[in-house]
Amino acid sequence: MSTQDTPSPRPGRPSTMRDPRRTICDAAAALFAAKGYDATSLQDVASAVGVTKAGLYHYFATKQDLFDTIVLAVLSDMLDWARARVDVAARPADQVAAFMAGHAAYFAANRDHYRAAFIGRGGDLYVFTPEQMAARRAYTDFLTRILEEGRAAGDFAFEDAPLVARGILGMLNWMTRWYNPTGRKGAEEIAADYASIVLKGIATD
Amino acid sequence: MSTQDTPSPRPGRPSTMRDPRRTICDAAAALFAAKGYDATSLQDVASAVGVTKAGLYHYFATKQDLFDTIVLAVLSDMLDWARARVDVAARPADQVAAFMAGHAAYFAANRDHYRAAFIGRGGDLYVFTPEQMAARRAYTDFLTRILEEGRAAGDFAFEDAPLVARGILGMLNWMTRWYNPTGRKGAEEIAADYASIVLKGIATD
Repeated sequence: MSTQDTPSPRPGRPSTMRDPRRTICDAAAALFAAKGYDATSLQDVASAVGVTKAGLYHYFATKQDLFDTIVLAVLSDMLDWARARVDVAARPADQVAAFMAGHAAYFAANRDHYRAAFIGRGGDLYVFTPEQMAARRAYTDFLTRILEEGRAAGDFAFEDAPLVARGILGMLNWMTRWYNPTGRKGAEEIAADYASIVLKGIATD
Repeated sequence: MSTQDTPSPRPGRPSTMRDPRRTICDAAAALFAAKGYDATSLQDVASAVGVTKAGLYHYFATKQDLFDTIVLAVLSDMLDWARARVDVAARPADQVAAFMAGHAAYFAANRDHYRAAFIGRGGDLYVFTPEQMAARRAYTDFLTRILEEGRAAGDFAFEDAPLVARGILGMLNWMTRWYNPTGRKGAEEIAADYASIVLKGIATD
């Protein structure tokens, strides 16, 4: 949470915050990640930021709106990280490893937002907005395309590229459930271990 | 839900149910899996089963108690499935494949209970009871032991067996998020695809 940007937040005066939408999202993400969406109220978020609920409404009409914003930002940011880290001219195996390292690095650097988006809501009734759906698909497709490119180049062998992509993402996303940021291995190291297993597992030779 | 066992449930008379605790858990698991723990009330569960809330209290004192019971049953049952399907005299690679197929088969056959336990609660404040913790550890240790046995036999090569175990479980557990029971591939087939990638990925040769 970047509430340190707001030394003396005045109730009902969110305009004193620097980048107020960002500050609100940071605070909300921490709450959604820990308590879950249903158990978090807009009042909790307002209190965490140091504004009134009325001040919060100025930026987000509903809790759903706030949650949707966080999920979309995570999905879009993850694609940006992948694009920034994956050299599409490199060998497909190196691209897969870079993609996985980027995913883990994003997770480690944005833990609250990531956990809010991936485990913030209990149950499976949450329906992605069309924008979120497009962002999620673009991210999965980015990995699937690398896998297919590697298969076309004769480097990889598997039947179902989207299934392999989901398996890779599962290994990484499940880290939300057990990863300890103060543990022996960092998130990128773990991703590298998984990448070496998967890459050997799908290699042609 | 096995509510078909109770053709005319009489309000407040849960004793007319066959295996009432089981019936209540089935109904609750379906609700927790879909709506999530926080958004599900004991009244919702009572209504789904066709008893009064007072009737429900006869079996479960709190919603937490009901959820804890489901989580413990899932963790214990998964270990039973693994024990029943894994031939500990077989080669470690076959044991890993059997373990993964068993995990997927359990998931496919007990989708509501599994999803309730794994994605029913939003956020990460849920604390396992000592019994649940022991059951979860026993399940993970079962897989880790196979991996270590395979490494000792010279079949597998990796540095960190628990990390590999968590990666395998992640691939399988993440299926809660995308698996479509009416899709082209069944859960066990998907597990077999993943097993062949992982086993090739950790093979010594």
